[in-house]
Amino acid sequence: MIRKVRLMTPGPTEVPAEILLEMAQPVDHHRTAQYQALLSEVTELLQDVLFTKSPVLSITGSGTAGMEGAIVTCCNPARKVLCCRGGKFGERWAEVCEAFGIAHVDYDIEWGHGADPGAIARHLDDDPEIGAVVVVHSETSTGAISDVEAIARITRDRDVLLLVDAITSGGCLPLKMDAWGIDAVGVGSQKALMLPPGLAFVAVGERAWKAAEAFTPSAYYLDLKAYRKSLAKSDAPYTPANTLMRGALMALRHIKEVGIEAIWARTAMLAAATRAACEALGLKPYAASPSDSVTAVWVPDGVDEAALRKQMRSDFGIQIAGGQGDLKGRIIRFSHMGYTDVIDTAGAIAALELVLHKLGHTLTLGAGLAAFQQEIAIRRG
Amino acid sequence: MIRKVRLMTPGPTEVPAEILLEMAQPVDHHRTAQYQALLSEVTELLQDVLFTKSPVLSITGSGTAGMEGAIVTCCNPARKVLCCRGGKFGERWAEVCEAFGIAHVDYDIEWGHGADPGAIARHLDDDPEIGAVVVVHSETSTGAISDVEAIARITRDRDVLLLVDAITSGGCLPLKMDAWGIDAVGVGSQKALMLPPGLAFVAVGERAWKAAEAFTPSAYYLDLKAYRKSLAKSDAPYTPANTLMRGALMALRHIKEVGIEAIWARTAMLAAATRAACEALGLKPYAASPSDSVTAVWVPDGVDEAALRKQMRSDFGIQIAGGQGDLKGRIIRFSHMGYTDVIDTAGAIAALELVLHKLGHTLTLGAGLAAFQQEIAIRRG
Repeated sequence: MIRKVRLMTPGPTEVPAEILLEMAQPVDHHRTAQYQALLSEVTELLQDVLFTKSPVLSITGSGTAGMEGAIVTCCNPARKVLCCRGGKFGERWAEVCEAFGIAHVDYDIEWGHGADPGAIARHLDDDPEIGAVVVVHSETSTGAISDVEAIARITRDRDVLLLVDAITSGGCLPLKMDAWGIDAVGVGSQKALMLPPGLAFVAVGERAWKAAEAFTPSAYYLDLKAYRKSLAKSDAPYTPANTLMRGALMALRHIKEVGIEAIWARTAMLAAATRAACEALGLKPYAASPSDSVTAVWVPDGVDEAALRKQMRSDFGIQIAGGQGDLKGRIIRFSHMGYTDVIDTAGAIAALELVLHKLGHTLTLGAGLAAFQQEIAIRRG
Repeated sequence: MIRKVRLMTPGPTEVPAEILLEMAQPVDHHRTAQYQALLSEVTELLQDVLFTKSPVLSITGSGTAGMEGAIVTCCNPARKVLCCRGGKFGERWAEVCEAFGIAHVDYDIEWGHGADPGAIARHLDDDPEIGAVVVVHSETSTGAISDVEAIARITRDRDVLLLVDAITSGGCLPLKMDAWGIDAVGVGSQKALMLPPGLAFVAVGERAWKAAEAFTPSAYYLDLKAYRKSLAKSDAPYTPANTLMRGALMALRHIKEVGIEAIWARTAMLAAATRAACEALGLKPYAASPSDSVTAVWVPDGVDEAALRKQMRSDFGIQIAGGQGDLKGRIIRFSHMGYTDVIDTAGAIAALELVLHKLGHTLTLGAGLAAFQQEIAIRRG
């Protein structure tokens, strides 16, 4: 059945047809010279995306698997982890620590706000047992950004690791792992990297590897040391999702061709234009510190969020996301990641206006689009 | 580049072009009615394949991830696990227990042999602290089968769980989880199920769920309770590899159409014919208890195993597997799983004969093929 669906969700995002067809090529074995070459090139291209010379490990699993791997491999249970919790994913990493018996201190952030570097510094000053900080760069559940560059300035000169959930930032928001002094970064395939779900990529730096050598984690499939050891031989410790990896090679080559800075600028432009459109429509932003990869706005009073999302899909094929947890039914979220451009985003704004209008919300049709276009015109010149 | 490669490896196996193209359909979101329907149907079809009424959980990860999930979720660390080790994968499950601090007793089996039900009974008699047995149904590294039906007869009437690694048996060898009394079964996507790597399917029965409720595992991404809870709402706890799941639906519908018993018979026929061919060529079987999903044979004296495999691929596009661990360079392995038929297998035998001949091994060209065909003719009538 042919049905035009445009994913504007913060994962999964659109996958180019070229990549879908690349992944439909006949399956080959992974213990071959061909796959070794593919893995090596994917790894190098991921290093470019994350601005690191450290190995970037490819793990078959969701982004959660990747971040769990980073936490259990690098966070010594003899010390504590400071978990910055400002949304569903920040909470998840505290749950991972809890599940594995890793002592953690929770730094609770008002949802919609980024982590405050000063507050993190105070936590570290107060409790020298803290050996690692886990922070979400772009909190997908709230659309809020944290200044991981500033946070890294605090951790990098102390005996404290910084693990960054870059699941909805790696490949679309500025992030320079080595220059900033970040110790581990986790990225998901189904976001900025334009791939289907199924892979997580985790970069682990020297300080984190050193910390990892000091203890034996409760981990097997997600013990990243096994991935590092295999990668040194251009191999994977467990059978990799090799069709997805084939897609990853094509996606990463495309990112290199376009240029990562150009992608950062495009993401920022789409986010700014979407925020302008929402403001013109009277839709209040949810995040006080908005991320450029995901825009979250409050659903206006009197509008049924489920009906809004449902009709955007049924009438116009636009799939957006709702809220999670306490925010269910209260916010809607748009992605600016990956294979999404000005026209796709304008289409989402058009559908939003039409459905809000249909649902009885008072607005001037086209007002959001005009503001969107003005922002684009300014930025593109 | 067009290059005809035929995978005769015990995972990954060939994926039908129809399934590759199905997975190349536009990516949709997983929190939709469409995906819920897909997940429900995949789950039901997997229940049919494994002959169980218990939920079958779909996990994004390799087969190792699935088995680790079953072990850490169901094996109470307050008791012991009996690990039946007769090859690389049997050893792996003991390593998983070790990594998670789950006490284990190792029952070491001579490689190439199946687990002896009597020996397992004696272990259980001797040590009432054993609360679970982990056994590999078809040990991919050696090509040996274990009689899990007989083993289940021992465990099912005791307070002992039976966890079966069915990674290279589920969907190709007779396996009736509920009727036999097995408590958990793990299957990989890239074997009999004709899919690329990236998914593990784990069926967990009532007794195992009850055992799982008695303790909190050191697990998060692979805590299967989260998958069960989500599945009750036709959902996944973490973003699923939804393109692979789309392929799974098509593969499982095909399996239902062909009939699982017919697939079991085909697999057995291909294995018997391959064994007959190898015997006619003077290639000695490695396994004393041969599995019908993987045939392992010794490489004849004087033949370089690496050259044999390399030339089968370069000259004829046939990719077979070598040995793992201590068996590296000493055996070769052929798969009979999934999308492989009489003609594919005859092609592999033909290539084997031609390359052995080229490498200077004395044989009568065609002798293996003749024996292969005779066995096929007898079985097909």
